[in-house]
Amino acid sequence: MLNIVGVGICEGQITERASKLISRAEVVFGSRRALMLASKFISGEFVEIKKFEDETYREIEKLAEKRNVVVLSTGDPMVAGLGKRLKGNVEPGISSVQLALARLKEDLCSTVVIDAHARKAEDELELIERRNLLILADRGFDPSLLGKRRAALIEDICGNERISFGRAEELRISSDYSIVFVWK
Amino acid sequence: MLNIVGVGICEGQITERASKLISRAEVVFGSRRALMLASKFISGEFVEIKKFEDETYREIEKLAEKRNVVVLSTGDPMVAGLGKRLKGNVEPGISSVQLALARLKEDLCSTVVIDAHARKAEDELELIERRNLLILADRGFDPSLLGKRRAALIEDICGNERISFGRAEELRISSDYSIVFVWK
Repeated sequence: MLNIVGVGICEGQITERASKLISRAEVVFGSRRALMLASKFISGEFVEIKKFEDETYREIEKLAEKRNVVVLSTGDPMVAGLGKRLKGNVEPGISSVQLALARLKEDLCSTVVIDAHARKAEDELELIERRNLLILADRGFDPSLLGKRRAALIEDICGNERISFGRAEELRISSDYSIVFVWK
Repeated sequence: MLNIVGVGICEGQITERASKLISRAEVVFGSRRALMLASKFISGEFVEIKKFEDETYREIEKLAEKRNVVVLSTGDPMVAGLGKRLKGNVEPGISSVQLALARLKEDLCSTVVIDAHARKAEDELELIERRNLLILADRGFDPSLLGKRRAALIEDICGNERISFGRAEELRISSDYSIVFVWK
């Protein structure tokens, strides 16, 4: 049995359902950060995932044929997460997208979410003609592509969190865990 | 003090942070469904919201100047929710969007979320040229607008849940709490 369980981004964001799945698991896999967020619910073995790659995922799936396995995903498994990479049931968690929308008081139904974390997403930025954009970004992302539009930058959400506002082209990204929000 | 707190869609989806905010509140407002989901955490007064309109929201904000008030929002307050309508802090919850993506194993970063619940959203359907669409729909929504594209219909999620697959034009929506997912 394999459950892919979202553990949120901040301390205390694990749901009751998620905590039960974690505490019943015989083996729990996750990044160091995910294991830390879930630590008080883990009663079985736990294994830190160091290489996020197909070989690791296939080994986990094989183990799950015999044992009750949980793979933790920081945030939500279906937001640039592990949900699509592993065969198993997905239990949602609170994502950084939701936190950013809560801070800015903007609705998901007026927004397009773009994953520009360690990947190029330039084609997708054209969607600014239609909707606000929420961009999961790292230091490699260039906000000046969005010109003089009104924008916000949220860095290290739930950690040493900082929010700044300005024109998109003026934003200076200093963290690899950044969210850029650009108003249409 | 006013906190707008997401309570999820299914039983057991309330986070630890949300449960603490609810249990510390002197007055908790919410729909009947939201109050039921949160009932075991409520220790103060509770009031069912019957009219979801500006006059109600202004009264709640006024009360919150003197007392510790929580307004519950089923799902997430920033997904077609109460977050934008009330002045206050938003605490995220699990939305029906996340549940639908979990069931279908599709990522939010490949999807546009459209609110077509009790409103027209025909202009927004053009976004199918760019991305998969996840449409919050009721019986008034006409899936045939999306033609022969591959689609899924999820009705009464976490209740008497049903999932069906087919061409968009073949789907028959029988619930006012439906999600239509259409692949690009």
